[in-house]
Amino acid sequence: MPKHPKGALLQNLGIERGTSVPIYRQIDASLRRLILEGNLRPGQKLPSTRELADELGVSRITVKTVYEQLAIEGFVRSKTGAGTFVAEGLDVKALPDFQRPRRQPRLADTVISGRARKIMPSKAAVRLDRIDPFRPGVPALELFPVKLWNKYLLDAAISCDRQNMSYGEIKGQSSLRQSIARHLINTRGMQVDPEQIIITAGAQQAFVLTALVLLNPTDTVWYENPGHIAGREVLEVLGANVMPVPIDDEGMDINYAIAKHTKPALIFTTPSHQQPLGTTMSLSRRLMLLNYARESGAWIVEDDYDSEFRYRGQPLPALSALDSERSVFYVGTFSKSMFAAIRIGYVVVPPAFVEAFALAQNLLGQSSSSVVEKALSMLMDDGKFSDHIRKMRRVYRERRNVLHDCLVTECADSLEPQPTDAGMHMLAWLKNNVDDQTAHRALLDVGIECLPLSVYCTEPLARSGIVLGFSGVNERHMPKLVRRMSETLRTL
Amino acid sequence: MPKHPKGALLQNLGIERGTSVPIYRQIDASLRRLILEGNLRPGQKLPSTRELADELGVSRITVKTVYEQLAIEGFVRSKTGAGTFVAEGLDVKALPDFQRPRRQPRLADTVISGRARKIMPSKAAVRLDRIDPFRPGVPALELFPVKLWNKYLLDAAISCDRQNMSYGEIKGQSSLRQSIARHLINTRGMQVDPEQIIITAGAQQAFVLTALVLLNPTDTVWYENPGHIAGREVLEVLGANVMPVPIDDEGMDINYAIAKHTKPALIFTTPSHQQPLGTTMSLSRRLMLLNYARESGAWIVEDDYDSEFRYRGQPLPALSALDSERSVFYVGTFSKSMFAAIRIGYVVVPPAFVEAFALAQNLLGQSSSSVVEKALSMLMDDGKFSDHIRKMRRVYRERRNVLHDCLVTECADSLEPQPTDAGMHMLAWLKNNVDDQTAHRALLDVGIECLPLSVYCTEPLARSGIVLGFSGVNERHMPKLVRRMSETLRTL
Repeated sequence: MPKHPKGALLQNLGIERGTSVPIYRQIDASLRRLILEGNLRPGQKLPSTRELADELGVSRITVKTVYEQLAIEGFVRSKTGAGTFVAEGLDVKALPDFQRPRRQPRLADTVISGRARKIMPSKAAVRLDRIDPFRPGVPALELFPVKLWNKYLLDAAISCDRQNMSYGEIKGQSSLRQSIARHLINTRGMQVDPEQIIITAGAQQAFVLTALVLLNPTDTVWYENPGHIAGREVLEVLGANVMPVPIDDEGMDINYAIAKHTKPALIFTTPSHQQPLGTTMSLSRRLMLLNYARESGAWIVEDDYDSEFRYRGQPLPALSALDSERSVFYVGTFSKSMFAAIRIGYVVVPPAFVEAFALAQNLLGQSSSSVVEKALSMLMDDGKFSDHIRKMRRVYRERRNVLHDCLVTECADSLEPQPTDAGMHMLAWLKNNVDDQTAHRALLDVGIECLPLSVYCTEPLARSGIVLGFSGVNERHMPKLVRRMSETLRTL
Repeated sequence: MPKHPKGALLQNLGIERGTSVPIYRQIDASLRRLILEGNLRPGQKLPSTRELADELGVSRITVKTVYEQLAIEGFVRSKTGAGTFVAEGLDVKALPDFQRPRRQPRLADTVISGRARKIMPSKAAVRLDRIDPFRPGVPALELFPVKLWNKYLLDAAISCDRQNMSYGEIKGQSSLRQSIARHLINTRGMQVDPEQIIITAGAQQAFVLTALVLLNPTDTVWYENPGHIAGREVLEVLGANVMPVPIDDEGMDINYAIAKHTKPALIFTTPSHQQPLGTTMSLSRRLMLLNYARESGAWIVEDDYDSEFRYRGQPLPALSALDSERSVFYVGTFSKSMFAAIRIGYVVVPPAFVEAFALAQNLLGQSSSSVVEKALSMLMDDGKFSDHIRKMRRVYRERRNVLHDCLVTECADSLEPQPTDAGMHMLAWLKNNVDDQTAHRALLDVGIECLPLSVYCTEPLARSGIVLGFSGVNERHMPKLVRRMSETLRTL
């Protein structure tokens, strides 16, 4: 190896003064690049700290600090009395050319796993960057009591002591689990011990957790068709064999599934308000489902996503309230009753599963912020959560009524709205054999964001329709929006 | 079916006055129970609302409301002019006896999936309910600027408008991604576009995300042995085939893995500060690893969990900073640099993977609270995060020094501390063939919570040792604690 007694001449360090990058970092980055690109060869001597400092017009201590850092990282080695040398034994020639533009393959070209491929296409129908009127599942954010919530958030932050700064309770703060248990006992007819509740970052994470604990890859899951989009995706990505079960007037058609499908490890259902058809599962169907689960050893996931909003009678008790055999995993969320960004949901699990779920939650990395959990708990305990639900129930009932009337008046030739007694969205069947994807795209072009019924399906339905979220649309704007909808649909 | 013209005599409704349960709900629950237990038979007539109201001494409207709710739920049917009847066709005899105590199987008796079985045993060594001195990974919470943080939290809450109440940006708030990008450019030598960053609820969730996108079940993963406990568990639960790779003086022994193992889909490594041995991966090993990844098509996960805390020279640049081929997925966390309950971590992914990761994150159910994300971003942009890191670096260096000195002075006969220049924990090798699980249990009994080295291993090591977290222990308490440690170890 040639060694220059005076050290390499470093004339292309390219130091610029007056930029925001400190001189120290510029020298450091340049030396690194010269070594990694092979322009400073292994074993080559660097200039002495004094020489380089003089040459660059910087202090000697600056250069010394850079050399020390490079030595710590193994780019150079200092030999006492002899100077500083580029490290030998670095396989730099094997390194790619740093000057060459970096490889930026399109996603389709990358080696990406089967799981990711499953994730990619399914989301195509849902825009993620903005929300237009009638998108399903959007609460009336303009009526949310932001100031009140911020007051609770601040109170929670102040009352959090250093005990609350560790990972904390895996299952979520016990105060929130107590508040949720009371809420479920009072409004959903359930018998819940707070210890059975696992707080998650929304319903979606509860599905992931449930699938991770209860399912092995290739296990069969009976799933409503049409059914909850994101829940199905979770199950598919985790490897489950998702079997579509049709919906009739009484809810999920269990007899059809028994006749057609293999025995399930899990049955996923939305009994309070079928997602998206809006059917309420009848009592006899509920009992049939529970009996079948008991006999077959299947577990049931009850997704109770918008049960707070019932416009006739009291909210129905949960399926879970009838479940004396402890085979139901009940999933709830605050994304609809509060707002999505709160990122809090939960799953109520049978007592025997509490430990496994807590450990799985720990494995997924626990999720909610403890301050936000505490604030929500305080809000609930003060009755402000119920107040908000009651207020929203009135608002959403009115919005449902107005939308239904507008659809009947304005869209009689193109849409047949399905009456609904609950929830935040309404299904409207398309007339004249209009394809729902076509309708969806045409309406999106005029700023109306319904979802095509077919995105909820694994098997096509006999009729096509669109799902219209009414909760997030001010009723005063509805007539105009529905007229626009009517005009657009008439052109198809 | 027998029908009583006057309706059933309901003498066992068991209504109690003066309890916190409203009369309405007591009547409702009693009727439900009588129907579900078969004591009110299908088709049987109920008393008229007037009769029952008189009998119970409540208003007729109360009874009417109960009947209406039961009718909505399908428990009873009202026939105009004839009265209210228990619904027919309910398969109530198939229902389990509600009087019987509910089945409460122990976990081992339940049908629980292979995944859950994998989760269960692995956590045995880690207590989750409390933290005792020397538990690894615990920051100096008593020195955290709680008031300052709460100020930022409040400012963030106030500045959040209704736009921030929706699901928001899937990848996390762009302001925080920008702050993190700047931090990584300044301290880790990386070239990062904020668009490459996906915010997660801690490093753990970043591992889940990465495994979901990059791996198919049964794919091979090369994993450091000993190595990060939770990361390994995530991979195993998701079905990966985790192969142990030993650590030598230069870090993960790639040549050993090439010779012994099948080609990996993923290589998981902690180059800055090997978890838990503390080795820093040499430059030549880094280059070898990157070259191998490029040639074999493997992806690399770089877990940079405590790189902020380096006590000699500047923090080393990340492995990712050398990665011109874009094969490294860089995982960082604020659990150590801030506090665990903040639940914010991130993964920096190659540009081609941004979309897949965002969709997978959406599938997992996005996680962090947007208010907390915003507060953290503001704290970072104001330089307060760097201030805190600098302060903690001084504190932890001192704690490391004191622990090392105490171990040398007090435990010379039982422990050999491994010098470390970084991080929050120190490895101490056990002398006299003491088993590390035995040492762990004995120390736990006297309130000292180290971790046995063997819980980090899939293959046993030649020597046993304990991992001592020093960052969370006040240096003034160390001499006493280490003396207690010495006395306990001497008895083994």
